[in-house]
Amino acid sequence: MAADKNQPNRITELFGIEYPIIQGGMIWCAGWELASAVSEAGGLGVIGSGSMYPEVLKDHISKCKAATSNPFAVNLPLLYPDIEKHVESIIELGVPIVFTSAGSPKKWTSKLKSHGITVAHVVSSAVFAAKSEAAGVDAVVCEGFEAGGHNGREETTTMCLIPSVVESVDIPVIAAGGLYDGKSMLAAMVLGAEGAQMGSRFVATKESSAHNEFKKIVVELGEGGTSLTLKELTPVRMIHNQFYRKVIEAYEAKATNEELAELLGRGRSKKGMFEGNIDEGELEIGQIASMLQKIQPAGKVVIEIVQQYTDTGGQKLGKRFEF
Amino acid sequence: MAADKNQPNRITELFGIEYPIIQGGMIWCAGWELASAVSEAGGLGVIGSGSMYPEVLKDHISKCKAATSNPFAVNLPLLYPDIEKHVESIIELGVPIVFTSAGSPKKWTSKLKSHGITVAHVVSSAVFAAKSEAAGVDAVVCEGFEAGGHNGREETTTMCLIPSVVESVDIPVIAAGGLYDGKSMLAAMVLGAEGAQMGSRFVATKESSAHNEFKKIVVELGEGGTSLTLKELTPVRMIHNQFYRKVIEAYEAKATNEELAELLGRGRSKKGMFEGNIDEGELEIGQIASMLQKIQPAGKVVIEIVQQYTDTGGQKLGKRFEF
Repeated sequence: MAADKNQPNRITELFGIEYPIIQGGMIWCAGWELASAVSEAGGLGVIGSGSMYPEVLKDHISKCKAATSNPFAVNLPLLYPDIEKHVESIIELGVPIVFTSAGSPKKWTSKLKSHGITVAHVVSSAVFAAKSEAAGVDAVVCEGFEAGGHNGREETTTMCLIPSVVESVDIPVIAAGGLYDGKSMLAAMVLGAEGAQMGSRFVATKESSAHNEFKKIVVELGEGGTSLTLKELTPVRMIHNQFYRKVIEAYEAKATNEELAELLGRGRSKKGMFEGNIDEGELEIGQIASMLQKIQPAGKVVIEIVQQYTDTGGQKLGKRFEF
Repeated sequence: MAADKNQPNRITELFGIEYPIIQGGMIWCAGWELASAVSEAGGLGVIGSGSMYPEVLKDHISKCKAATSNPFAVNLPLLYPDIEKHVESIIELGVPIVFTSAGSPKKWTSKLKSHGITVAHVVSSAVFAAKSEAAGVDAVVCEGFEAGGHNGREETTTMCLIPSVVESVDIPVIAAGGLYDGKSMLAAMVLGAEGAQMGSRFVATKESSAHNEFKKIVVELGEGGTSLTLKELTPVRMIHNQFYRKVIEAYEAKATNEELAELLGRGRSKKGMFEGNIDEGELEIGQIASMLQKIQPAGKVVIEIVQQYTDTGGQKLGKRFEF
């Protein structure tokens, strides 16, 4: 059911934030420095726990709490092997908001909510948005084909996904995929979203824990510089670097799924994004990286987005667009 | 260079139309009945010449001229084998606007323009948008990955393509791919486009020359019901019907490009879209078809889009948004 444009924005209300700008909780890039900077600036910072050992996550949560008194969140991939420990830390340390992804929200939503935690779930289709709502989540993030990293098999783009998801649920919808500035944020909200999640834009910030070599590649990337590949394993959007070309060669040699899995191996994304091995690592980023030109402080990014949104006239379109 | 929001909309001005709504010139679907109905309603109707013999195109142009005194256009795929004859008819019969696609705009743009014809070229990347501008076209249509039918290899989605193309050219940009209503039209314009081209929405009209069985499949289609495939030949987005499943089986059997070309054969799209053989034909449609519920008169579609655009507040965002 499409949100009434004359009702207040439910995302700022739900999360207790000033602007409905959510920083994606990306593996290897989104630690406490980034999350706290975004939250301090009035958006919602999200710690990406998918690349953290349980002790590391605890440390990041504690440091984030110390760095900001504003709400922040943790992204929790539901297939994370040690998920019980992550959930325990989240509850114990009083994280107010959790974004779950990559798995069914049925198992953990009620536990998280019973501890007063607000839960949003990341989906790539209207069907899973409806299932997430039925599982009791408070909001969904709908992420289009153009987004970086792991992605849906249906390949539905943000432009098509937002109206479809908005129609399929009553809870508020946050859009993701291809969003990077105030105009794209407003476009997503015109399509019915009540908030915008941005990943790539926040990779290219000073506070992101991505390796500097990776950040440099991101801001130099041209249009068409990424592809969604490895669909037989888990679809993932990555930069066309040397490792990607090896994947393509494997496809051309008609590799089996086992051979592809072996080529991918373990730790490829850490190697690329965190350790800065830009040839041999897996470099996950969204298509919209081609529009990014510079590495900026995360707080400045939030302010710029809000400014452009306002300049474009966002606030004129109804109560849902005001913040 | 992004268009100033306070300058008048250049697409309505360039084409001499009331609303910057362009009906895609789709093969097998866009004959004179559809084009004239859209133009009569204040949008720009486009005859799809890619599926027409030279004599057939002449007939459609004559009938379109008889049915409306408003401007209309012809879509001209530049790889069409008998293109000289098509160009001759277009000039001879005084078609005011041509949309070129699927090929380099270098060869025909100056000839068309020397006869006073306005030329827009369809692109799927910023690089080709800039090349088209250099070739002298008056506008570009940037078509995203989610669009139906033939499509770009870079797979750039509408959300990412619009800002990128807008930044790369000074001529006005028409967006296509995933657009179907007043909200998506406004979203595209917020991103910098000055007009919206819609294909799937106009397939599902009474005046479209698509076979009724195809139209029915289109309005019943669910999310995720199409894929971009046959990338080794020419990437094309089609519905997951029996023919599509044969293509997938061929991929699973590691078919060669020659085998794929043989499977595709000739006349597949005619068989599906025009003759209504929904099992064995190729059914080209955009992702956004999943949002379409009914077959409507084309003029009513134009009116509905304008109404929703206005209700959403489009006209409040600056002179570029007014029409």
